[in-house]
Amino acid sequence: MHGVRLFSSFARQRLFFINFRPSASRFTRPSLLSTFQHHQQPQLWYSSKSSNLDDMGKQQITLKTVKGSRDWAGVDIAVRDKIFEKITTTFKKHGAVSLDTPVFELKEVLAGKYGEDSKLIYDLADQGGEISSLRYDLTVPFARWLAMNPTVTSIKRYHLAKVYRRDQPAVSKGRMREFYQCDFDIAGTYDPMLPDAEIMKITVEILDDLNIGEYTIKLNHRQILDGLFEVCGVPKDKIRPISSAVDKLDKSPWEEVRKEMTEQKGLDPEVADKIGEFVLKKGGRDLLEELEKTESLASNDNIKKGLSDMKLLFDYLDVFGVTPKISFDLSLARGLDYYTGVIYEVVTELSAPPAATQGPVVASSSKGKKKSKVNKDDPDADRSDDDTVGVGSIAAGGRYDELVGMFSGKGKIPCVGISFGVDRIYSIIRKRLENSSAVLRSSDVDIYVMAMPEGSGENKNGFLKERMAIAKRLWEGGINAEFLYKTCPKMQAQFKAAEVGGVPFAVIIFNEQLGLDTVRIKELGLPDGHPEKEGVPVAVTDLVDEVKKRLKSTGGIEQYIARVKLQES
Amino acid sequence: MHGVRLFSSFARQRLFFINFRPSASRFTRPSLLSTFQHHQQPQLWYSSKSSNLDDMGKQQITLKTVKGSRDWAGVDIAVRDKIFEKITTTFKKHGAVSLDTPVFELKEVLAGKYGEDSKLIYDLADQGGEISSLRYDLTVPFARWLAMNPTVTSIKRYHLAKVYRRDQPAVSKGRMREFYQCDFDIAGTYDPMLPDAEIMKITVEILDDLNIGEYTIKLNHRQILDGLFEVCGVPKDKIRPISSAVDKLDKSPWEEVRKEMTEQKGLDPEVADKIGEFVLKKGGRDLLEELEKTESLASNDNIKKGLSDMKLLFDYLDVFGVTPKISFDLSLARGLDYYTGVIYEVVTELSAPPAATQGPVVASSSKGKKKSKVNKDDPDADRSDDDTVGVGSIAAGGRYDELVGMFSGKGKIPCVGISFGVDRIYSIIRKRLENSSAVLRSSDVDIYVMAMPEGSGENKNGFLKERMAIAKRLWEGGINAEFLYKTCPKMQAQFKAAEVGGVPFAVIIFNEQLGLDTVRIKELGLPDGHPEKEGVPVAVTDLVDEVKKRLKSTGGIEQYIARVKLQES
Repeated sequence: MHGVRLFSSFARQRLFFINFRPSASRFTRPSLLSTFQHHQQPQLWYSSKSSNLDDMGKQQITLKTVKGSRDWAGVDIAVRDKIFEKITTTFKKHGAVSLDTPVFELKEVLAGKYGEDSKLIYDLADQGGEISSLRYDLTVPFARWLAMNPTVTSIKRYHLAKVYRRDQPAVSKGRMREFYQCDFDIAGTYDPMLPDAEIMKITVEILDDLNIGEYTIKLNHRQILDGLFEVCGVPKDKIRPISSAVDKLDKSPWEEVRKEMTEQKGLDPEVADKIGEFVLKKGGRDLLEELEKTESLASNDNIKKGLSDMKLLFDYLDVFGVTPKISFDLSLARGLDYYTGVIYEVVTELSAPPAATQGPVVASSSKGKKKSKVNKDDPDADRSDDDTVGVGSIAAGGRYDELVGMFSGKGKIPCVGISFGVDRIYSIIRKRLENSSAVLRSSDVDIYVMAMPEGSGENKNGFLKERMAIAKRLWEGGINAEFLYKTCPKMQAQFKAAEVGGVPFAVIIFNEQLGLDTVRIKELGLPDGHPEKEGVPVAVTDLVDEVKKRLKSTGGIEQYIARVKLQES
Repeated sequence: MHGVRLFSSFARQRLFFINFRPSASRFTRPSLLSTFQHHQQPQLWYSSKSSNLDDMGKQQITLKTVKGSRDWAGVDIAVRDKIFEKITTTFKKHGAVSLDTPVFELKEVLAGKYGEDSKLIYDLADQGGEISSLRYDLTVPFARWLAMNPTVTSIKRYHLAKVYRRDQPAVSKGRMREFYQCDFDIAGTYDPMLPDAEIMKITVEILDDLNIGEYTIKLNHRQILDGLFEVCGVPKDKIRPISSAVDKLDKSPWEEVRKEMTEQKGLDPEVADKIGEFVLKKGGRDLLEELEKTESLASNDNIKKGLSDMKLLFDYLDVFGVTPKISFDLSLARGLDYYTGVIYEVVTELSAPPAATQGPVVASSSKGKKKSKVNKDDPDADRSDDDTVGVGSIAAGGRYDELVGMFSGKGKIPCVGISFGVDRIYSIIRKRLENSSAVLRSSDVDIYVMAMPEGSGENKNGFLKERMAIAKRLWEGGINAEFLYKTCPKMQAQFKAAEVGGVPFAVIIFNEQLGLDTVRIKELGLPDGHPEKEGVPVAVTDLVDEVKKRLKSTGGIEQYIARVKLQES
């Protein structure tokens, strides 16, 4: 028993992956995991050795990922997958089905969908055959799919996949060229604002479930905005450009936006000032009522329709209990042209770039903005140090009733959806975990199969086949188990392996004490003096049931399956 | 109650998604789902309407996916995801962690890794910056990652992702240009054959869990094969080409392979005949013993090492109980050059192309082989009708101890792994389900929230907000729920919606009968005369618990979450 006593203090506390105080334990973070530096990858040059693999390794190879892309490994991917799982579970809870489209589309399918940003599309080389490009988002492939499947007139679908943009990367801020999007859309003809309200509810459920911290859903309506521009006297052909200018109010003060309107976009300064009276307003239902009472707006059809939608939406949001998260914000305009109704964007305190002003009306603060040193003309340059780049909104979307119809030529399919910037959400949560006392592990092993070796020299027995047989029994019973790939490992080596993996339990063969039909189950990291410190003998035939019971009694198997805890209690 | 009685017969049986006889029910397959034809996508030409989205839709767009790629939707993706989940669950059970690499790699990272097949690599266009290509497999990215992370000296990793090959597609046979691979590899220095044996065990666990039907793991050892070639007198520079010829024995008879060796590859016919004496042998441990006793082989170092490995492996496979699935097959050579130890390939009865001979020794049957009409010179042509193309092996792999070391220049990292052809596995299972009586659904909704409308005309009340509040309560209790997006839907429409979605339960608001604090839970599709046919009244405050209990009592929540049943009982 010496081995057990000696090394059990190495083993992890059960609380290890829940709440762990470094000072209270000798446990150190496994060296394996510490190498999974997220957002940093070494550039190594190796001269490969000559080999019998003919062409391989004769040249020097740059060992890196393509700029703006990254590997996901270790704790990073464990945390990320947990986030993905929580999000998709909520989508499914609301009846969504999954859709998976190819990573590339015919170039003509993407052409003309993204305006100026089309230059950011990754093209595939022309190698004969069809000309294609990597997808830029998940919305156009969804529209293409709906158009190709004309009998589908309504669907709730989600799609979690990577998209590609040849934008200037800012890697440490989570602005990548290859990044994940997670889209949820409801297509179909329904009574007004019901799907819209459910999307707000889903958003709140997801962000609360992720414990993302303080956030606000900025909400506006395209028709109210368009109506305001009409009432203020914006010429029809200037409505979209002026709308784009307004959308910058989250980053720039009103004075700068006004300048863009009047100087760059040739808007009458009086019209700009009228716009300013409205677009700086934000609030809740009170703002809605204020607008309804404003006589100058009452006669505009767009505004009337928009306000009636918003009123209904607020009613439904009250039922769903999500109104406190909503800010009706007239400065929200959203870049994409295709929105036709409600639009929204979820921001956190981390969303705004550090250099941005605290509020659009505080014009003076922009003077302190220091010039970025990043060369913006080099599209490959990393803008991580560029202080005009923030994390951005963590989710955004809106209603687009015309897009699918235009795409396909078949009847209109009204759609409303939201896209979660899951890489940004990941960055926020990862940072929180780093700053917390949580220690995370990347594997899901429940129990480590060990044996106390016997004999010495040539007669030494590590009970390899017995360990294998017990692992087989556990696997076939649905339990995650490992054993050391050594014929005769020392006890210490086996405890160490369990410790590095953060494994909560061990099953130990003590042939001399117990024979081969009985083993000991030991919860690792129990404090000295605990009645089960030395483990508990169990018949091999009862092993699976006993392990399951123990996994359950320490917080439920669920807790061990969902190893990575995103929330701290 | 009239509405309920009238339409409950429309609703599905609880057994609907488990075992369903079309003749025993009026339930028809939802029209939505029937449009998700897998492997077939219509080519539609639409002339888009003019719109205010400037560039959009001014041209005619071909509505299709890129050749050799496909969308995954509806029941297809539900079945596929279930397969993915089962496979990755088993990987995790054995301690594997996930790794996710970018879809593209620097071209130089892929260059020279795939020999002749390098021509199949998809390149990205040169748009300035780095030159890159879509990944061809998951092994080279894994090796690149290991090389970039020098402190990682051992890892069990899995990776499930799409890979890209500009090969001639055979869409209906599951040979695509974009397809999923699912790789599991064990890297690290361990005692011999232990990781190798665990990979065989994992393979058997996965395929049995998927109920894939009859299959065989063909097993061989590169060193035995190389040693045989040496003993037979194959010149050193001809060993790899002769090995490739031997590998064709699963598709071609020995006579053709012999011809390739002697006529194309200039091998002495006597040497070829000696090879023929060995490579047509297959068996189990008996073959191992036969080879050990064959004097001509005993002195060859490669063979000695290979046989000693195989002997140990068979010992371990016996402990894991997987020996019955193994065929020690001396004709298995595997195409890739980098294997250094055991190699294996899993075949099913569907693996061989229909035109292939039943066994390599039956040379005459090749004469009946009809010429394919497919133009093999057109790389874009679909070879689905080409009868020389089979589904191929459903999993394959081996030991590659030199690859990572050569790649990175750092010390050797011995590896052994397997790659599952999950698209092929999907094709086999999908076909089985089509031929079975199973009816599948794509969404996971547990309960449909309904209300019996009251009043008429302007005073008609559909209890929308009450339905919303109940849905909110269910969602927040973790239950998958939907309601109809109509302010005042008829009872019939609500039952119909639940039926189309295959939803097992309804919660119904009957204000006149029960008031708003009590609802009825109704299991849909109960036979007439069942005591709970009309549902059971439940206080709204007890609703979540009651629904959970009912989901459990009808086979466990698990059953409803894992809607798609891959096995039939």
